[in-house]
Amino acid sequence: MKHLFLSRLVILTWLLSLPGHASELPLVQKQTYTTTDFTLFSGKRLPEVKVGWESYGKLNEDKSNVVLVTHYFSGSSHAAGKYRADDAAPGYWDAIIGPGKAIDTNKFFVISVDSLANLSAYSNDVVTTGPASINPATGKPYGLDFPVVTIRDFVNIQKQVLESLGITKLHAVVGPSMGSMQALDWASAYPAWVPRMVSVIGSGESDAWTTAALEHWALPIKLDPRWQQGNYRKANPPTEGLVAALMLITQQALHPDFFNQQGQRLNYSALEPAPLHDITASHSIVTWLESRARARASEMDANHLLYLVRACQLFVAGHQGSLQQGIEAIEAKTLFLPASSDLLLMPYLAKDAHKAMVTANKDSDYVELAGELGHLEGVLDVQEQQQKLKTFLEE
Amino acid sequence: MKHLFLSRLVILTWLLSLPGHASELPLVQKQTYTTTDFTLFSGKRLPEVKVGWESYGKLNEDKSNVVLVTHYFSGSSHAAGKYRADDAAPGYWDAIIGPGKAIDTNKFFVISVDSLANLSAYSNDVVTTGPASINPATGKPYGLDFPVVTIRDFVNIQKQVLESLGITKLHAVVGPSMGSMQALDWASAYPAWVPRMVSVIGSGESDAWTTAALEHWALPIKLDPRWQQGNYRKANPPTEGLVAALMLITQQALHPDFFNQQGQRLNYSALEPAPLHDITASHSIVTWLESRARARASEMDANHLLYLVRACQLFVAGHQGSLQQGIEAIEAKTLFLPASSDLLLMPYLAKDAHKAMVTANKDSDYVELAGELGHLEGVLDVQEQQQKLKTFLEE
Repeated sequence: MKHLFLSRLVILTWLLSLPGHASELPLVQKQTYTTTDFTLFSGKRLPEVKVGWESYGKLNEDKSNVVLVTHYFSGSSHAAGKYRADDAAPGYWDAIIGPGKAIDTNKFFVISVDSLANLSAYSNDVVTTGPASINPATGKPYGLDFPVVTIRDFVNIQKQVLESLGITKLHAVVGPSMGSMQALDWASAYPAWVPRMVSVIGSGESDAWTTAALEHWALPIKLDPRWQQGNYRKANPPTEGLVAALMLITQQALHPDFFNQQGQRLNYSALEPAPLHDITASHSIVTWLESRARARASEMDANHLLYLVRACQLFVAGHQGSLQQGIEAIEAKTLFLPASSDLLLMPYLAKDAHKAMVTANKDSDYVELAGELGHLEGVLDVQEQQQKLKTFLEE
Repeated sequence: MKHLFLSRLVILTWLLSLPGHASELPLVQKQTYTTTDFTLFSGKRLPEVKVGWESYGKLNEDKSNVVLVTHYFSGSSHAAGKYRADDAAPGYWDAIIGPGKAIDTNKFFVISVDSLANLSAYSNDVVTTGPASINPATGKPYGLDFPVVTIRDFVNIQKQVLESLGITKLHAVVGPSMGSMQALDWASAYPAWVPRMVSVIGSGESDAWTTAALEHWALPIKLDPRWQQGNYRKANPPTEGLVAALMLITQQALHPDFFNQQGQRLNYSALEPAPLHDITASHSIVTWLESRARARASEMDANHLLYLVRACQLFVAGHQGSLQQGIEAIEAKTLFLPASSDLLLMPYLAKDAHKAMVTANKDSDYVELAGELGHLEGVLDVQEQQQKLKTFLEE
């Protein structure tokens, strides 16, 4: 059995090393969708919205093979493949999106869209509209004049992108974390579009715990004196507040087991001399966490983080009075894949949504991802359930 | 069975309502201990140290009935009883300290000491020495010139207080959370003093996860422009940073179940109109959390919080190279009482310390507190294991 496994591994490695082999995607190109006078869920309007999108696989003739992938909080539409042959890493779900993979691009046209107020506002590979965008009324960045946006608004922009391609129905919508919120809201808001929905490390609504927990991500930014009530210049942003927020987000998305392995690599010990002798010094593990956050911060916008926090805080599937009401509207068969070790969106959240489906006599399945990566299991290790996912999508 | 329980409850209520009944402690008085030229674990010296202490019950003739109670992060030596008859609440562990209770003041002389850099620096009922104290060399508050202090320093001050009363040995040391660190360090540093040690919601060391997690409590304070590298005036303190830190601490010490019950009381819903229409508005649950934190902040000092964070980050039982080394020195029989629902110091931490005891062929017991208060189970609901605790102390 082990021999067989090793043989398969050797074969796979060999296959994967062939350039242009069927298990790899061709180079990916970011596209831009633009619309004007876009009405938000709140009733407010945006004069112009631009969002990036990308796709993998081919749209079939009757446009019936569309799988929409909705991205997580700090992610973008770059779900799979590479933009450039020398990119350090492919899109975040490359392990499950591609030829022959769980979301099989030999069968499906997979498409993903950058969120509004996308966190990586300054990445060349992201196109988004948010508080860092120029307000045509003033010629300056919107800052806090940008209206509050919701998960429903992300869904509605995605729907316009799809409609611009002549698509009128999905084969499935699949997303992790904040992406799971979009996936479930899709199924509730546009049930005729959505026959299949997969929620990975997700929730059905932001309960009191989650909404309060998300607030801690916003507070460090608001405390940074450079934040200036959101009116900072791009050249002088509230980087320290943003770094502190990213440090918290990174830790909450992981699990002690992963952190303590990292501690071993750093030779971490509680009684390190520097922090013992100097209150301004830090433990090795803190320095590591900070350097990771700082490396990511330069492409990100602090106000965008505040708006994404708010979108998640306002989330309830269907954007109606209650989760159960939102669930009642769903026609899709659904699959919930939370991670057992998740400390950020704990499995009870997905279980509550699944139970609400069952209570409403809907077709729903629930399986927990094992493994010790915490919330990030759903991003980095979801291939653990690739067969389950493949079967769900192809049945 | 239910009838029996109710009858006992009625009886208990009736008993507790009798003024001066044996189950209540007489009014408590805070005392002050002062010492000079105190050498810290780091080797640095403090010219003067003052700490408050209080006690319940009577010291017996041979001074053999002393139970030391060590307090948690935001606590003080006020473990039981009331200072004034009209105090709104008694000390935090009043449910288990008193005549006939688990820590029986008819038998034991129970004593507790305010920590160095105690968080409630401006409370009239706390006496402490920390960065908010006047540095005799400058006539101004120490600020960050105050040396780093450790859990061992808290232990060493307690030892001096005990020795000033002629005490040379404890019957037991018992403490929750940061108090558990002191209790375990006592058992390792001064094994001849400690025949019994109880760690409630505790840990054996701050692993990489815990040290990084604690850093998030410090970051909001350092971001507050009023913090001024620790050189703020008492009249213009970094209150917003302190409030943000206390909001995070409060949430991490609780559990989703408690939060969501609170959400129900507030009529919380994800789609509340104010946060939907105004990015500067907050959800009801956030406002509740903030108001709780703000109410507590006025008695607390932001620099003291940073020093307590550091003391906890540096903790390893015995303050040697490893946990196992620290455990080897222990002669006490030990009891670990973590809380199953604890998200702050998760049960694995106490379990690791207990396992290290077992590995070293020591006498150790481990029982988890049930209930859904999270970390605060160990402060607010430890009476769940009162019989276990009573037996452990009286055997």
